Amino acid sequence: MLIAALPDGALKPSDFEVHEAPTPEPAAGQVLVRTVAITIGAGQRAGLQGSASYAGAPEVGRVMGGSGVGTVEASNHPKVAVGDLVRADTGWQEYSVHDGDRVGALDPSLDPAHHLGALGINGLTAYFGLTDIGRPQPGDTVLVSAAAGSVGHLVGQIAKVLGARVVGVVGSDDKARMLVERLGFDVALNRRSDDFRNAMRDATPKRVDVYFDNTGGPILESALFRMNTHGRIVCCGAASQYDTSSPGGGPRGVPGLLVNNRVRMEGFLVFDYATRYDEGRSQMRAWMDAGQLHPESTEYQGLEQAPQAFVDLLAGVTVGTTIVRV
Amino acid sequence: MLIAALPDGALKPSDFEVHEAPTPEPAAGQVLVRTVAITIGAGQRAGLQGSASYAGAPEVGRVMGGSGVGTVEASNHPKVAVGDLVRADTGWQEYSVHDGDRVGALDPSLDPAHHLGALGINGLTAYFGLTDIGRPQPGDTVLVSAAAGSVGHLVGQIAKVLGARVVGVVGSDDKARMLVERLGFDVALNRRSDDFRNAMRDATPKRVDVYFDNTGGPILESALFRMNTHGRIVCCGAASQYDTSSPGGGPRGVPGLLVNNRVRMEGFLVFDYATRYDEGRSQMRAWMDAGQLHPESTEYQGLEQAPQAFVDLLAGVTVGTTIVRV
Repeated sequence: MLIAALPDGALKPSDFEVHEAPTPEPAAGQVLVRTVAITIGAGQRAGLQGSASYAGAPEVGRVMGGSGVGTVEASNHPKVAVGDLVRADTGWQEYSVHDGDRVGALDPSLDPAHHLGALGINGLTAYFGLTDIGRPQPGDTVLVSAAAGSVGHLVGQIAKVLGARVVGVVGSDDKARMLVERLGFDVALNRRSDDFRNAMRDATPKRVDVYFDNTGGPILESALFRMNTHGRIVCCGAASQYDTSSPGGGPRGVPGLLVNNRVRMEGFLVFDYATRYDEGRSQMRAWMDAGQLHPESTEYQGLEQAPQAFVDLLAGVTVGTTIVRV
Repeated sequence: MLIAALPDGALKPSDFEVHEAPTPEPAAGQVLVRTVAITIGAGQRAGLQGSASYAGAPEVGRVMGGSGVGTVEASNHPKVAVGDLVRADTGWQEYSVHDGDRVGALDPSLDPAHHLGALGINGLTAYFGLTDIGRPQPGDTVLVSAAAGSVGHLVGQIAKVLGARVVGVVGSDDKARMLVERLGFDVALNRRSDDFRNAMRDATPKRVDVYFDNTGGPILESALFRMNTHGRIVCCGAASQYDTSSPGGGPRGVPGLLVNNRVRMEGFLVFDYATRYDEGRSQMRAWMDAGQLHPESTEYQGLEQAPQAFVDLLAGVTVGTTIVRV
């Protein structure tokens, strides 16, 4: 699946096109991987905006990038066997070749969706962003935006495990119910409701100690006015600004409220934690095995559904990790 | 000197009025202090905007607050002697009474201006903000706004002592020359020049590792676009927003640039470092004695000049610490 056009305004399925190519041959040291599933993240939309993003400069005619899980079909590497389930940057394609050193063998007893979700980049982002940047203490109030999303729904659950009171912000009443009834959030608010600002105030009587920001924009601005003294804002993403060619202005209250309330606002990228991924995966797996963490996903069948999955993700239709099974 | 009116728009001398009152009598445990000098800080303007500021709610008819140095004229406290030079929250008045436990004896061999400047709240703000929040490493580029101000001119000099390359932003060519020629800044830029943004880019070829922000507003926005990976923004004040009744919008680039460049932006108030003031004062005094730190001040004679000094400070006329000798 190739990038057919750089999106002008909101992303459309026609910004991508199917392309048939011969199955690649693995060279010495390489392996051939047949994709089983891929995941799509909202941050990838930023990668289609140009060189300003960490996702790198986009290019028409290239295979759309992304993380996947696949089975090894041919191996020229001594440590990788045919049939192994591996994680790789497959991109949106059925077959891809990789250096054998760069694919990691996965536990085949686990659903591949988990390897791309709670144990993938989404889960590691939630884990390191919350524990290393946000650092919630027991009894703290943790606010999360895009709280039904791939990262947000895990952030809220981790915060609960760590003893925090958790308030999620989502885009629909259905998502809000799901967070409270199925995932144990204390409160969930629909940002589209008329009295959202008042609802956020009422939901945070002891104000907010950690705000995990996946959206930027108006929710960030509202959260700034609710931060506690010495609060922390984890800047993880700016989903409100991705699917547009004209991002809005900055949040009022910066820097005045940061000074008055001694708030720390810190951006991070999970890639900086690469040497600690094993630690993060072990902890997340332990919480899953203990029944304390329930990863959710929205699934699509067939690579040809990937563009629609991406559009749905950006429109806020999906819940949890967006997975395309190939 | 009383608050006569809460400023509507820019501060005017007529927002204050002289008031004669009997010299107060110190009660048991108290001391009577005759003010020798006071200092005025830009942050005090925020205190006249209402309850939103850390400086507390202002009130018409109250004595204008502020830090001062004075001589003890009468003492009902065993540890304070008549004639001692002390630091106290004298406010804008000739005589004031204080609990003897709350006034600290000062080295009388030093000019009182230093006790209110480099060894006062301004100096401690520069010291803790830069070393604890900004944490410059040798070779880092440190950018400072309001760099000729009471805090800024010390921040730049401390950063030089710590081995950084220092770029100051000021409001006039005269101030820029002073910073480079007298205080050892590597570069100083006039924010009012036509090509300010380009000049900032040219002055920071290795980008900015620490931005010490005293102004907020457009300079903060420009600085955000120049931050290095893992850069730190010390949010110390928002002078650009103080002298107005209608503060502007927030800086573009928040939160997107914070994420992409993993930037930490952190507000602080020096009062949180109260238990470490002795450490800060010792270090600042040592640098002064070694000739590495040259505190500057702009001086006014007579308490009746305090309102004009405050107006000049906010207009950017003063340099270094603003001192009113009484």
